[in-house]
Amino acid sequence: MSEPEDHTPEEESPKIDAVLIADMADAVDEADRRWLSRTLLRLHPADASDALEQLDREVFCRAVGLLGGELAANILIELRDEYRRDAVRNLPGEVVRSALDALDSDDATAILEDLDEERRTALLKDVAPRERAQLEQGLAYDEETAGRLMQREFVAVPEFWTVGETIDHAREEGERLPEQFYEIYVVDPGMHPKGAVVLSMLLRASRDTALTDIMVPLESDIVGDMDQEDVAYQFQKYSLAQAPVKDGDGRLIGIITVDDMVDVIQDENTEDLLALSNVRSADGSDTVIEAVRARAPWLAVNLATAFAVAAVISLFEGTLDAIVQLAILMPVVAALGGNAGSQGLAVSVRGLAERELEGSAARRAVLRETLTGLVNGFIFALGVGAIAFVWFRDGMLSLVIAIAMLATFLWAGLSGILVPLGLKRMGADPAVASSVFVLTLTDVIAFFSFLGLATLVLI
Amino acid sequence: MSEPEDHTPEEESPKIDAVLIADMADAVDEADRRWLSRTLLRLHPADASDALEQLDREVFCRAVGLLGGELAANILIELRDEYRRDAVRNLPGEVVRSALDALDSDDATAILEDLDEERRTALLKDVAPRERAQLEQGLAYDEETAGRLMQREFVAVPEFWTVGETIDHAREEGERLPEQFYEIYVVDPGMHPKGAVVLSMLLRASRDTALTDIMVPLESDIVGDMDQEDVAYQFQKYSLAQAPVKDGDGRLIGIITVDDMVDVIQDENTEDLLALSNVRSADGSDTVIEAVRARAPWLAVNLATAFAVAAVISLFEGTLDAIVQLAILMPVVAALGGNAGSQGLAVSVRGLAERELEGSAARRAVLRETLTGLVNGFIFALGVGAIAFVWFRDGMLSLVIAIAMLATFLWAGLSGILVPLGLKRMGADPAVASSVFVLTLTDVIAFFSFLGLATLVLI
Repeated sequence: MSEPEDHTPEEESPKIDAVLIADMADAVDEADRRWLSRTLLRLHPADASDALEQLDREVFCRAVGLLGGELAANILIELRDEYRRDAVRNLPGEVVRSALDALDSDDATAILEDLDEERRTALLKDVAPRERAQLEQGLAYDEETAGRLMQREFVAVPEFWTVGETIDHAREEGERLPEQFYEIYVVDPGMHPKGAVVLSMLLRASRDTALTDIMVPLESDIVGDMDQEDVAYQFQKYSLAQAPVKDGDGRLIGIITVDDMVDVIQDENTEDLLALSNVRSADGSDTVIEAVRARAPWLAVNLATAFAVAAVISLFEGTLDAIVQLAILMPVVAALGGNAGSQGLAVSVRGLAERELEGSAARRAVLRETLTGLVNGFIFALGVGAIAFVWFRDGMLSLVIAIAMLATFLWAGLSGILVPLGLKRMGADPAVASSVFVLTLTDVIAFFSFLGLATLVLI
Repeated sequence: MSEPEDHTPEEESPKIDAVLIADMADAVDEADRRWLSRTLLRLHPADASDALEQLDREVFCRAVGLLGGELAANILIELRDEYRRDAVRNLPGEVVRSALDALDSDDATAILEDLDEERRTALLKDVAPRERAQLEQGLAYDEETAGRLMQREFVAVPEFWTVGETIDHAREEGERLPEQFYEIYVVDPGMHPKGAVVLSMLLRASRDTALTDIMVPLESDIVGDMDQEDVAYQFQKYSLAQAPVKDGDGRLIGIITVDDMVDVIQDENTEDLLALSNVRSADGSDTVIEAVRARAPWLAVNLATAFAVAAVISLFEGTLDAIVQLAILMPVVAALGGNAGSQGLAVSVRGLAERELEGSAARRAVLRETLTGLVNGFIFALGVGAIAFVWFRDGMLSLVIAIAMLATFLWAGLSGILVPLGLKRMGADPAVASSVFVLTLTDVIAFFSFLGLATLVLI
């Protein structure tokens, strides 16, 4: 969670614009540590991290080195992953350690992930034993699981307590409690959660109210090794602000808050969008080398499939040699078919991500996509046929391209839903590789049906 | 917000599977209102709405008619937009009105949006004047703005209050307070918010603590007519669970909670994903007609662009007639160039959505995309040239396709970033129409450079 009270609001916050960024770069050049750290502290941590990210990567690293211990932990944790990783690598050990102390355990875990094995072990040695154990337990969970994302600071109270006792307890604990939380958990002696009490209910109930009277059953069911995508789905479905995380035996071990889930939702959406366009990953701060690495592999796959499609075309070399109009028209069939295929694909991938295609809904979707392919196929077969006729005045050629169009649309509709559904069933990510499959096969069908029919009918 | 305490958790919740859905459909056929309503009440409202959405659309409408007043308002509000609209239309007026009474004002506004003008006016007449005024003010804001999404129930207290006075006030108000909230606002006599007190801070502070001592400055700055996308961005950036909404004069008029923002973020992501693939809208419950309507318009645009590309090819009819290998290879250039273009496009659209391309970052991105196009262009020019040489044993042909490939990649890289940036500057949605522009122009460059060079060099 962010800790808003750490910046100093009484002074007006500087505006983040090109001038400020240039001033910051100058301050780094002049090693003006005092001005830089004061400027950052006057910003909200999220704005301060934004401003730092707008520096050139090399200037950013020097800025971090210059700031050292003056780089507040809550600015560090707001940085985007790549920047945070760079920053942690450029900070001395004692600064990283004091950041670990200052942060909640979920954020501390994120920092620890950025370190190599050796440095991590060295740093953890200096952390208090109880917190070290907590952090090591967090790291024991796989990446992208609830266990990695949860914070181990939460409030749990026994079943027989009243509202008054709970408030008194909170006042006694004071600073030891997490900075922000939205509900507390009622647990049995074995730490199994029995229900949740949202703070707004606690606030409006009288002191002698039993917690069990205002507690609500847990809506979520999250265990430590659950995939973050499933966790985010529960947050979305049940409109949660916070949810408890249990271990394999159903004992409460931590909580997850909605701000982390918003980030997960954004990441998963970005992944789908990029995967559908054959990009492995992307970030605003990517270098050319990173961009090439993220895109060349899929282009290489596409190189192979493109030549496979060319091989299909070469089967009809004689036909193309005889009727040059076919060479002019064949990209039309491929372009429209490809467009229909990626439309269906996008709809299917989105439906799978929003879990709209479960059970009988999947069957209905396959039917709808096939029929949509058929209807659009008819419409655009007529359109393409008509335009081709106006252009070349050849009835048979128009008929051939119309039939090829219809076949291609039908195939595009069918494969646009079946390929992602199939990948999902096989446990693969339906967005990755789907478009290469669908678009290559649609190209093959397009050229094969168009040139094949032309060979049969026109030669 | 969901109201979890309204379902009856003491009985085991039924599992949502094909059997339950079939049983529900049977219950609708047999008009077994009692079983259906009891079954739904035993589920969490979000699960109950999921189960209802799995019924065929026509069975769903009959189920709503059968349930009538037994359809809980919190199930109604959890239904996806299209289903909720159907449900509201099938429910008698008094049932809709009591739902309006039961729901927070943001949810009530959503229900009112589903009604036609006439029915809305008739229903509002029966609502208590104070609530009616609130609802009408909400509807006065444009769709997709903060004013539409906010709820008008919130807690605001004067600056001179203590923690104790605030808690006493909350206990007195009791049921009149909103079901769930995460922070309260400290306001001056003119209702201008001075700061926020998060409930967890309120809970752990002693009774005599002044609110001004534990209040934090407002991180967000949201006014009623702000676009929901900008609101969601503030929630994401500042990790908010709740934020105040002000009117034009800076007076507090409502609050927005994060669960609504999660929905907005999902919707905006879905829009981008679909727009990039030329789909106007999509939903799991779409009929074939809806699917055709959402896709045919862009296919029609693509029909025009595909024939424009064909016209470019036809300029080189003589060349194609002379060298049939060109017809075989030309889809390779187009396919790889198109892939490179949509990669760049996806990266740019994502960067714009995450606001990573502001100021100097945009310039850097243009440079990166151009250089990435150049580097990948070199790599794949070599690859395509080599494969073409192995296949056709024609050095000049290989050289021609390699140069065409390089030119196409460079263009794809440049247009993949410049087109969405340009659309954004013009105030248009960078995802919509981008891909038609980029892919058509990339096709034109691919065919023109390949066939043009071939005409110059090989003929």
